[in-house]
Amino acid sequence: MPPIAAPSLDIIGIGNAIVDVLSRADDAFLEAHDLPKGGMRLVGAEDAERLYAEMGPGIESSGGSGANTCAVAAMLGARVGFLGKVADDQLGRVFAHDIRAAGVTFPTAPLPAATAPTARCLILVTPDGQRTMNTFLGACVHFSAADVDEALIAAAKVTYLEGYLFDPPAAQAAFFQASRAAHRAGRQVAITLSDPFCVQRHRQAFRRFVREEADILFANEAEICALYETDEFGQAAALVRGDVALAALTRSAQGSVVVTEAALHPVPAKPTTVVDTTGAGDAYAAGFLAALTRGLALPECGRWGSAAAAAVIAQFGARPQGIMQGDLRALVGAP
Amino acid sequence: MPPIAAPSLDIIGIGNAIVDVLSRADDAFLEAHDLPKGGMRLVGAEDAERLYAEMGPGIESSGGSGANTCAVAAMLGARVGFLGKVADDQLGRVFAHDIRAAGVTFPTAPLPAATAPTARCLILVTPDGQRTMNTFLGACVHFSAADVDEALIAAAKVTYLEGYLFDPPAAQAAFFQASRAAHRAGRQVAITLSDPFCVQRHRQAFRRFVREEADILFANEAEICALYETDEFGQAAALVRGDVALAALTRSAQGSVVVTEAALHPVPAKPTTVVDTTGAGDAYAAGFLAALTRGLALPECGRWGSAAAAAVIAQFGARPQGIMQGDLRALVGAP
Repeated sequence: MPPIAAPSLDIIGIGNAIVDVLSRADDAFLEAHDLPKGGMRLVGAEDAERLYAEMGPGIESSGGSGANTCAVAAMLGARVGFLGKVADDQLGRVFAHDIRAAGVTFPTAPLPAATAPTARCLILVTPDGQRTMNTFLGACVHFSAADVDEALIAAAKVTYLEGYLFDPPAAQAAFFQASRAAHRAGRQVAITLSDPFCVQRHRQAFRRFVREEADILFANEAEICALYETDEFGQAAALVRGDVALAALTRSAQGSVVVTEAALHPVPAKPTTVVDTTGAGDAYAAGFLAALTRGLALPECGRWGSAAAAAVIAQFGARPQGIMQGDLRALVGAP
Repeated sequence: MPPIAAPSLDIIGIGNAIVDVLSRADDAFLEAHDLPKGGMRLVGAEDAERLYAEMGPGIESSGGSGANTCAVAAMLGARVGFLGKVADDQLGRVFAHDIRAAGVTFPTAPLPAATAPTARCLILVTPDGQRTMNTFLGACVHFSAADVDEALIAAAKVTYLEGYLFDPPAAQAAFFQASRAAHRAGRQVAITLSDPFCVQRHRQAFRRFVREEADILFANEAEICALYETDEFGQAAALVRGDVALAALTRSAQGSVVVTEAALHPVPAKPTTVVDTTGAGDAYAAGFLAALTRGLALPECGRWGSAAAAAVIAQFGARPQGIMQGDLRALVGAP
């Protein structure tokens, strides 16, 4: 067995490379367009155009669940890379700029603009701060095994996989490939379930991945319950213990629970004013992994997760735009 | 003389059609890049690319001074149109969507994407809330007399002209054409000076336009002092009286002064937390014109201006993204 080099990255994320279009909407707009509040649905190019034409003025901001996690983790001082597919177009350049400007290594080659445009997610934020997402995947469906940079994966302590990538078929195969590359290099694999409907669409593949590949699992209450087909959070938390070594389960205002075979650590949510919940789970995973790869204890990892989530919830958009990186580090108490 | 039809619009704006890229930066970044704080400078495509590569993560949001005024005035209930040149590209579609979604008629044909891209303004927001702007004009320099929709101009109570358009040469000619079309239809012409350096670049043309064409003038303290080459606001305010029937002169935290031949009305600023001053002057003009075209008295027009500016200053970006249109109307007390 070759000697394992010291990791040069803390986290390498793999996910959909998406530009968010955020707009305020009221409940009547969601009802008129038959959009279930709080969910994520995939839309084709035409439906995306139609919805965009009808929604209010927006702001554009780089998004994508796994990419958000990577950007926030980098802002917290972690060494981070990201793999995901944009097109060679204006929004693709916006995505690439923002993630690199956050300090993240982003090597994935863009798709020719004529093949498909950069993905976008039309996000309707209701007055209660809930976000309802409509994703046109565009270039993301062209992410494939060829884009899995095994050298970067081998160089990172944790490979972090976004569950939404179970939707594009080629990406699912890329996941297993990435996971195996990470394990061959003696690294850990983390996955987030992303969305209860995504879990329903791919439950068997998720179960297998969590049991056979994942070392660390992130999920919110609805997602973990969807995975184990139960209505009881306690039951889901008990079941996950047999499947994965470490799970961080988030419960919105009720905080989170960090679960291992040996222990169960409850973590309080950090109180804040809810402006927009977009990216809350992504930021939690960022704080958690930034602390974990620094070698901090699990309750402290949970606390960093709560602090990062609170910073994102208190503003409009999925990444902390309104505060400087130093402010974010101060929030979690990082040097 | 033909009978004059009742106006179907309150305001038609003409200005640069720009997408803003807003990013937090500290004073050291401005110094390292030799950017005078609070100013606007024009940059070429290469300089824009270089600065973009070095600045932090951004959010994209439709901007352009005159377009901001139009969007905010429409949110306040005015009937508004806008003329300005985008390219047929992704950012051009973002601009067109946002201004139409704000309720503004926007008929200008886009430029082919291969000719020039949609304009963007790289805005660095420092911790004191000041914005420093770097504008790549792109498609805007192709705005010409052919884009002046005289029917829309004749249909609007006020034609509102953005002073920044004195920079692209073809646009300056379009200004005089628009002004004459408005006056032929018995309408009023308003202009904003936009920027003290823009005034310095084109002082004689501005002086002539204010004296010969404008019925209403908007300017801040630095701009009106630049126009009359004085350091004394009182002197500038006295000089403007002989040149234009109505002037609204803004002075940041000191509020504004509404000046006519007969009277001088001081208007207090509305106290608020300063997050980002981008668009403050644009929003003031929006509130003022929305009230004026409703037939309200001049002190009330000033109060609407102050309220709209305060709403924009308290958030990140030039148009009120975080609040619904109804909230904005409630802020100024409009039905």
